[in-house]
Amino acid sequence: MKITVLGAGAWGTAFGQVLADAGNDVMMWAIEPEIVEGIRDHRRNAVRLPSVERLPERMTATGDRAEAVAGADIVIVSIAAQAARVALEPFRGLIPETAVVASLMKGIERTTGKRMDEVVRETLDLPEARFAAISGPNLSKEVAARNPSATVVACSDIMNARLVARACTTHYFRPFVTTDVVGLELCGSLKNVIALAVGMARGAGYGENTAAMIETRGLAEMTAIGVAAGADAKTFCGLAGVGDLIATCGSPLSRNYTFGSNLGKGMSVEEATKVSNGVAEGVPTTDAVVALGERLGVPTPLATAMSHVLGRGIGCGEMLGELFGPDITEE
Amino acid sequence: MKITVLGAGAWGTAFGQVLADAGNDVMMWAIEPEIVEGIRDHRRNAVRLPSVERLPERMTATGDRAEAVAGADIVIVSIAAQAARVALEPFRGLIPETAVVASLMKGIERTTGKRMDEVVRETLDLPEARFAAISGPNLSKEVAARNPSATVVACSDIMNARLVARACTTHYFRPFVTTDVVGLELCGSLKNVIALAVGMARGAGYGENTAAMIETRGLAEMTAIGVAAGADAKTFCGLAGVGDLIATCGSPLSRNYTFGSNLGKGMSVEEATKVSNGVAEGVPTTDAVVALGERLGVPTPLATAMSHVLGRGIGCGEMLGELFGPDITEE
Repeated sequence: MKITVLGAGAWGTAFGQVLADAGNDVMMWAIEPEIVEGIRDHRRNAVRLPSVERLPERMTATGDRAEAVAGADIVIVSIAAQAARVALEPFRGLIPETAVVASLMKGIERTTGKRMDEVVRETLDLPEARFAAISGPNLSKEVAARNPSATVVACSDIMNARLVARACTTHYFRPFVTTDVVGLELCGSLKNVIALAVGMARGAGYGENTAAMIETRGLAEMTAIGVAAGADAKTFCGLAGVGDLIATCGSPLSRNYTFGSNLGKGMSVEEATKVSNGVAEGVPTTDAVVALGERLGVPTPLATAMSHVLGRGIGCGEMLGELFGPDITEE
Repeated sequence: MKITVLGAGAWGTAFGQVLADAGNDVMMWAIEPEIVEGIRDHRRNAVRLPSVERLPERMTATGDRAEAVAGADIVIVSIAAQAARVALEPFRGLIPETAVVASLMKGIERTTGKRMDEVVRETLDLPEARFAAISGPNLSKEVAARNPSATVVACSDIMNARLVARACTTHYFRPFVTTDVVGLELCGSLKNVIALAVGMARGAGYGENTAAMIETRGLAEMTAIGVAAGADAKTFCGLAGVGDLIATCGSPLSRNYTFGSNLGKGMSVEEATKVSNGVAEGVPTTDAVVALGERLGVPTPLATAMSHVLGRGIGCGEMLGELFGPDITEE
């Protein structure tokens, strides 16, 4: 198949390699000329994925939008969540009418509170059945190193989920399928708030018990929001939920973790923002989750406590105190 | 309240400290005279929990069984799973008829295939309503250091679960309650098989993605077995399930993890056993899980693959291959 990947960040490029390894012809599109040239002429993405010495032969790149998507069977979208709408706008009308569009993006659009499936479908004027979301415990560097990994492909049309899944099956990359697009989208964005809190506890010097407690209670909160929003609770116990939460919170390299960790060490939000490379996605997501919880009538103790960390500067001890009421309760 | 702890290993001692911190009078019972003297005369358990400099004033110890349990409101059992039956036998008839007996033990008795709730109740001739299980993401050293931790107390009689939970509530230790004893017991023992597999993948050099994939698929397997055995699926998504799995697999110090890691580095089962301090609980549990799955009619791909690792010496790549069939499936 011919598959186009829009965006050549670390994850887009690593996923492009998976697609090429699976036997597809992969066209990367990027706005940065040096990245396009690097991939096309030197089989390298030295800017975003320097760990890969030589990208597969079946992968090339272009900076031209029309050329990029012409004849594509599948179009993968891998653009920073907050930039997706603006970046995708020029592709409306260019994407073949039979192509399935699959998103690797995680997050909630700050200005609208919308999920990535909503942003992509609105922007590209795409029917539900032609949109897929891909999410799972997939740290880019490890997929790029061809470590055994699994993921989930969601599409309301299960046949299109299978189409995308088949296109990215290799000996080291294993996709499962589901129709629960909303669940998958919420897993991918909500976990970033939990990663902030776990990073904070780690930064304050706490160990596995505290991290596991936050992750588990956070998972219950994510699941409750998801179910109220129409998602399937099972999705949250699967690879895109628990799985991605474990991988994200286990990796001290993630931006959310590092940001939280700096807060836990005693930095103010301003100081932590200053030393970070850009804002961690969990920061805007925190308020979005509190708002979502209010709208759906679901309590969000973790997101609310984290919003007090970010807004009022409360410390880790107080944040953990807010997580639990005074009574002994059933889980 | 007066609370007796049978067994002064690392976890029993750390939990005794929690109980004393919560305002109870705690009597530790141990078979080793040097541990009894250490706790009673020097407020130290230098053998099993050397990280604690000074145990609380409200904690003392005895080697006398009748003295240990006389007048106890709650009796905590914290003995190595495979030694529990023999160690508990002499206590039959000594424990006050009103006392609730709560188990900290995790495992399946090798010779009978029975869970710890079954072993304790049989041995002490205890009615269901007076038995509680305690399980959660509770690494002993971290609880001993008073790191924020949460746990779950299960008893068929929810009032007795609450009684035990209240007795161990402190500012750093937070119990939740449930009536799902079977679920709690299965969580505590089945996770050790998953920890073996995760350790193996880590030993083979794989990262967060592979670990998260194994943990998530293992969780699905644990849950399926639990549900078939009459447990509540929710327990497996909670602190005693996901939570304990995360803490156990995140701690490279656990025996199961280390054992698996040595296999992943290429050691044979014999070599790994030789360099371990005793056998990892996950090893006998692996066959018990395969047998349990067969009895309940539940597929156990992870436990079966691990039994091939332990029995036939297959490597990590082959183990991961066995985890997944050739088809693209729903999670």
